[in-house]
Amino acid sequence: MSDPLLETLSVALGSRSYDIVIGTHLFAQLGARLQPLLPGKQVAIVSNTTVAPLYLETVAASLRQHGFVTLPILLPDGEAHKNWENLQKIFDALIQHRFERSSTLLALGGGVVGDMTGFAAATFLRGVSFVQVPTTLLAQVDASIGGKTGINHPLGKNLLGAFYQPRQVIIDVDTLATLPARERLAGMAEVIKYGILWDAAFFERLEQDLEGVLRLEQHLLIATIRACCAIKATIVAQDERETATGQRALLNLGHTFGHAIETLTGYGHLLHGEAVAIGMVMAADLSQAMGLCSATEARRIAQLIARCGLPVRAPWFPVEQYLEAMARDKKVLGGAVRLVLVDHIGQASIQSTVPMELIREMIGRNMSPPP
Amino acid sequence: MSDPLLETLSVALGSRSYDIVIGTHLFAQLGARLQPLLPGKQVAIVSNTTVAPLYLETVAASLRQHGFVTLPILLPDGEAHKNWENLQKIFDALIQHRFERSSTLLALGGGVVGDMTGFAAATFLRGVSFVQVPTTLLAQVDASIGGKTGINHPLGKNLLGAFYQPRQVIIDVDTLATLPARERLAGMAEVIKYGILWDAAFFERLEQDLEGVLRLEQHLLIATIRACCAIKATIVAQDERETATGQRALLNLGHTFGHAIETLTGYGHLLHGEAVAIGMVMAADLSQAMGLCSATEARRIAQLIARCGLPVRAPWFPVEQYLEAMARDKKVLGGAVRLVLVDHIGQASIQSTVPMELIREMIGRNMSPPP
Repeated sequence: MSDPLLETLSVALGSRSYDIVIGTHLFAQLGARLQPLLPGKQVAIVSNTTVAPLYLETVAASLRQHGFVTLPILLPDGEAHKNWENLQKIFDALIQHRFERSSTLLALGGGVVGDMTGFAAATFLRGVSFVQVPTTLLAQVDASIGGKTGINHPLGKNLLGAFYQPRQVIIDVDTLATLPARERLAGMAEVIKYGILWDAAFFERLEQDLEGVLRLEQHLLIATIRACCAIKATIVAQDERETATGQRALLNLGHTFGHAIETLTGYGHLLHGEAVAIGMVMAADLSQAMGLCSATEARRIAQLIARCGLPVRAPWFPVEQYLEAMARDKKVLGGAVRLVLVDHIGQASIQSTVPMELIREMIGRNMSPPP
Repeated sequence: MSDPLLETLSVALGSRSYDIVIGTHLFAQLGARLQPLLPGKQVAIVSNTTVAPLYLETVAASLRQHGFVTLPILLPDGEAHKNWENLQKIFDALIQHRFERSSTLLALGGGVVGDMTGFAAATFLRGVSFVQVPTTLLAQVDASIGGKTGINHPLGKNLLGAFYQPRQVIIDVDTLATLPARERLAGMAEVIKYGILWDAAFFERLEQDLEGVLRLEQHLLIATIRACCAIKATIVAQDERETATGQRALLNLGHTFGHAIETLTGYGHLLHGEAVAIGMVMAADLSQAMGLCSATEARRIAQLIARCGLPVRAPWFPVEQYLEAMARDKKVLGGAVRLVLVDHIGQASIQSTVPMELIREMIGRNMSPPP
């Protein structure tokens, strides 16, 4: 493990603290890494039908080599399947194979696999061990860290879930080479988000190095993912359960509009990162309208997103439908919509007194023309 | 609140600490009591179709009087309904009525209502506030305290759930007057359990005062429930999540056999307390066979249970089916069945090396004849 590319970060949460390990060729070492960490020998590897053919056997072999008994559980791929029916499939397999309290669930896949596996780990026998092995950029920089788990409800995203921390997050950037370009770019939306809300210098480095990152140059990739994970770890350590007054809510930059877009289009049409990309452009535009960030900054944000080939315009729906979907979103407190807006690049804040008229106008301004 | 019968206990769990309040005429004070405790104004009162006609309006009126907005959610009554379909009904009502993170779920009913409401509170929007108002003896002395929540799975009891603590437990012993005698007696099984596993003097007081308790003499009732809650609070404070080596597992005295009985008969035929009563007789018999407690003590245990009119013999099923159901139960560690046995009245311990042959013989000895 003297790999010069290996980075380790810690998420400081007292008795629930854990490490994030970032590097290359990590899957063959998984068994050795997890052996001292897990209480029992049974490990269910939850993955999907896209990721499993690529990595499942390497991961399972490494675990078996270190005495673990592995059970593969394969889910269909995609946000549309993040529902109760597939969660049930995980439970059924665990019960059928007599999984115990000392057993572990390992998520091998993207955010959907991680969210569902984590929720299953949180609720099976009232909680078993959980390991995150994210294979998409979006999951590596965001979904796998911080313990948010859950499933969607027909009426809204992530309405059911739990805060449940993993024992370790293992990020092998080699997986990004097999990730479809569209998904890789969707992950870049969350990468850019960290620069906007927390770190102006990181945003500027992205403006400079974007093409190298998109070409998957290993040093740039690891440095970029490390920076994102470090910001997320800092925020999560300060505000594990996203309290009303805490900083964790800042991570929802672009997400209130993004979730509304996903709800209106139905899950699975736009990738989550694509919806967030549009949502961040909308948030920046609204921030400018509110007199927070400058027109130049709003433009730099939209430009960096557009350079990734990400969408910057919301799909057409009546404005009222957007407002309705936002009202149903869980980031509502005492009836007022709470929005994360951009003070300037590198700093965001939560605003709960944005005039409804400004929101309406902004949505109209950022929408595609009707079909 | 200078009621001489009012007792308050604390469950010491750091930032998740909460009070247990025990007394009479408490429902009319609910709103005043909860007002300083809850973050928001929306309260869903989850109850069942048996309890609601008796107490829902009093509880709701008291809450409304203190500015809360209440939403009644009624479930069908009984363990057979502690399943995903009814949990779903709770979620649907919460979503439909725009419940938020600052909202509260209040469980008004027995263990089934409490377990389901708690699990809904643990997982709706990744966790909202939760209040327990148990109306059965069993829920008052056991299920409402300690944060175990969950639902059954067709293949086993409580296989899905979470540890999730309430903000307060409010026990009004007046409710026991309207509780059917059979359910009251079933609750006595858990009362007796505390004496067996923790407190010989309490067991002896029960032997003396049993008839007075069963006649619902108020002072005896409150003293008895208080003693049970104090024991449970002590154990839960030491071992919130039931670790493999912790004392919380002692509370499962009679439950491994009891759960097997419930699984075999199908939920809803025997009451949980009835199954536990039989399970405790079985555990005491096995303890004696293992050379732990004396024959006299095993007899005293069976006698006190029988004096309550509780069943003491297991329903007939092939012994192998009992062993199979026990193996599927979640109190299995590394393949070995862990049983809570009785060292002597007032002290129990966990045994994981009980010879299978002794378990087989004990089941045979304690079973009703085949039909």
